[in-house]
Amino acid sequence: MRIDADRLWRRLHDLAAFTEPDQPWTRRAFSVSFQQGRDWLRQQFEAAGLQTRMDSAGNLIGRLEGSVPGLPPLATGSHSDTVPHGGRFDGVLGVLAGLEAVQSIRESGLRLRHPLEVIDFLGEEPSDHGVSCIGSRACAGHLDAGMLALRDGAGESLAAAMARIGARPGELGPALRPPGSLAAFVELHIEQGPVLEARQLPIGVVTNIVGIRRYTVTVAGRADHAGTTPMHLRQDALVGAAEVIAQAQRLAASHGDGPPYVVATVGRLALTPNAANSVPGHVSMTLEVRSDAPAVLDGFVHAVMAASADALNRLRVTADVALLTRTEPVACDPRVMAAIEAAAARLQLGSMRLPSGAGHDAMHLAEAGPVGMVFVPCRDGRSHCPEEWIEPDQAAAGTAVLAQALVALDGA
Amino acid sequence: MRIDADRLWRRLHDLAAFTEPDQPWTRRAFSVSFQQGRDWLRQQFEAAGLQTRMDSAGNLIGRLEGSVPGLPPLATGSHSDTVPHGGRFDGVLGVLAGLEAVQSIRESGLRLRHPLEVIDFLGEEPSDHGVSCIGSRACAGHLDAGMLALRDGAGESLAAAMARIGARPGELGPALRPPGSLAAFVELHIEQGPVLEARQLPIGVVTNIVGIRRYTVTVAGRADHAGTTPMHLRQDALVGAAEVIAQAQRLAASHGDGPPYVVATVGRLALTPNAANSVPGHVSMTLEVRSDAPAVLDGFVHAVMAASADALNRLRVTADVALLTRTEPVACDPRVMAAIEAAAARLQLGSMRLPSGAGHDAMHLAEAGPVGMVFVPCRDGRSHCPEEWIEPDQAAAGTAVLAQALVALDGA
Repeated sequence: MRIDADRLWRRLHDLAAFTEPDQPWTRRAFSVSFQQGRDWLRQQFEAAGLQTRMDSAGNLIGRLEGSVPGLPPLATGSHSDTVPHGGRFDGVLGVLAGLEAVQSIRESGLRLRHPLEVIDFLGEEPSDHGVSCIGSRACAGHLDAGMLALRDGAGESLAAAMARIGARPGELGPALRPPGSLAAFVELHIEQGPVLEARQLPIGVVTNIVGIRRYTVTVAGRADHAGTTPMHLRQDALVGAAEVIAQAQRLAASHGDGPPYVVATVGRLALTPNAANSVPGHVSMTLEVRSDAPAVLDGFVHAVMAASADALNRLRVTADVALLTRTEPVACDPRVMAAIEAAAARLQLGSMRLPSGAGHDAMHLAEAGPVGMVFVPCRDGRSHCPEEWIEPDQAAAGTAVLAQALVALDGA
Repeated sequence: MRIDADRLWRRLHDLAAFTEPDQPWTRRAFSVSFQQGRDWLRQQFEAAGLQTRMDSAGNLIGRLEGSVPGLPPLATGSHSDTVPHGGRFDGVLGVLAGLEAVQSIRESGLRLRHPLEVIDFLGEEPSDHGVSCIGSRACAGHLDAGMLALRDGAGESLAAAMARIGARPGELGPALRPPGSLAAFVELHIEQGPVLEARQLPIGVVTNIVGIRRYTVTVAGRADHAGTTPMHLRQDALVGAAEVIAQAQRLAASHGDGPPYVVATVGRLALTPNAANSVPGHVSMTLEVRSDAPAVLDGFVHAVMAASADALNRLRVTADVALLTRTEPVACDPRVMAAIEAAAARLQLGSMRLPSGAGHDAMHLAEAGPVGMVFVPCRDGRSHCPEEWIEPDQAAAGTAVLAQALVALDGA
């Protein structure tokens, strides 16, 4: 069984062509280009011999029946939507590699015992309604009525947008993929980070997907005239925020290479009045910590604030912390990891185990069955930008590993 | 000679009433409310017996002739424009106190040797074209063609806006107030800071107006995925910026109460991408230092960058510094300071000497003749906000000192 690397590469470019023409590469969930991409994808699934359907959450599924009736499917896939001004491979590679793997298995004459499913999950990237992993979240039964009621800038609810593209949100409720309904789920994805490239390894075996805590940290001081307010009478909120930023960086970096894996970021910051001649009176910023260790996730923000407390007191500013979002780490299944590792070894491709610092559809499938992920390197670690790039042989290597791993998991 | 405190207070409220109705207190230079305020002001000048004119820079001048022909005028005044959402006293008080002082002198029957001029300088606050001290800058001959060509958000050049309100920008070039053309200039202003209030003193005698260096500090790192980029592979521009912010605060505070007077502020900051899940790749911020010591002004930013250099290197980010604006400290004239101090003493009002941390029209008059400034306290040190406030007796005390000082300088 051999995958067709040229076909895979051609399809990657064919799907990328469905983009907002003035801002490549942009294919937002629910947009016209998204629907055009999915029409094309459905045709590709069918031409490859897969039966297609859309589930009630709007996930597009191509299925190849197995030889043993009643077995749960082995599933693979990812997402075809993108961030604004995104890349050509994030998500898309996982969908098309899944198609290529299943098509190659079929064309090789192999008949697996389990059904094979390739899934294009709906809206993995945060949609304009503010919800991410729309389709995979529904697989776990976690797309709730509050999320479905959220509206985008044009006033359309998520439920209405889903119905518009053929989903049936009114049927949602319990998990679409209940526990035990998947023999396994394996997702191929670009790493979106620099580790594999730095180690010159073509295959990453994901050990777990980190949990995330995101907080709004509000530093309150007093806006004053920047010329007339002596330093000792100031309450400068930005100087206070700088202390919190420095402590978050210091504490996360203190874990070194881990384990545990710990990264922390202040990525968003706004200050008022935000004028050259005003002492900042108020700073609002987002502090995010990601880790595979629940204890780190729970303790990090408290440690940052404790380490900053003396300085904030001296500066006479206060800091409040409010939890924005919370997701728990998800462990990949040891048997799936072993299958991926063995497939890489058999194909003579170097591999390493590493955590995923990014969230993925796979994390919402972990309750339905054993999950695993294959990472491939991407140039310079870049993602979510037009420069996102992988080489054809990197895409092919990952796809070959995916196909081999699916075959191995069928027999396991 | 006694000033009329009630008339002064009434006028302060009459002029404040010319505001954008939906955002008190806002009277931006060149706006309709600004022109209405000036029409009212011209009537007040004329009703008080002053001859009015507008000079080519758009300064509105009320003049009372002296008894000795050919002597240069003793001048006072400030500005009637405000920042957006500003207060009722910043600038306005200096104009109306000047009018009250000159009117009181005239009504008392005193005839000074020098002409007296009350000046409402055009656009002291940064205009929508980005130019501050428009009128007083032209008095020194420093309103150049580049500034006159700047356009506001609506596309109107500063020259066109000036012409629209009656100025003659085409005639500008040499100083409107050349060296020796003023017997003295004395400006009354609210302190805009907390010092006089903290010491419970009604009168401040300004020793000098600080110089300002304003820089754009650009910290460049690399935008990366906040989940997938390990801490040691990051180039986080915001963490670098936090170091610069902390060092600027530390170095300025190290001067204590001075002398020299030193304040430093990062008041404006913008980062990109500015998303919760992105490592900041780029930060642009404004670093401002103000001091009465030229050596501090010249050395401060270099000291901040030197103190930050090791940390920035460790973070693998770079920082560039570009000078935005530069003004030199202006010393008040010892004779004018002595006249203000003596006037306060004669009126049994406590006073102290202090520098002005804010820029004022007076600094542009220093080449034309000896300058001085009278400060009065403002509540809680607040300014440039709707809460800006002084008590009627505080306004009256400063105005009485101003009038006495002008009389004294006439005889000096």
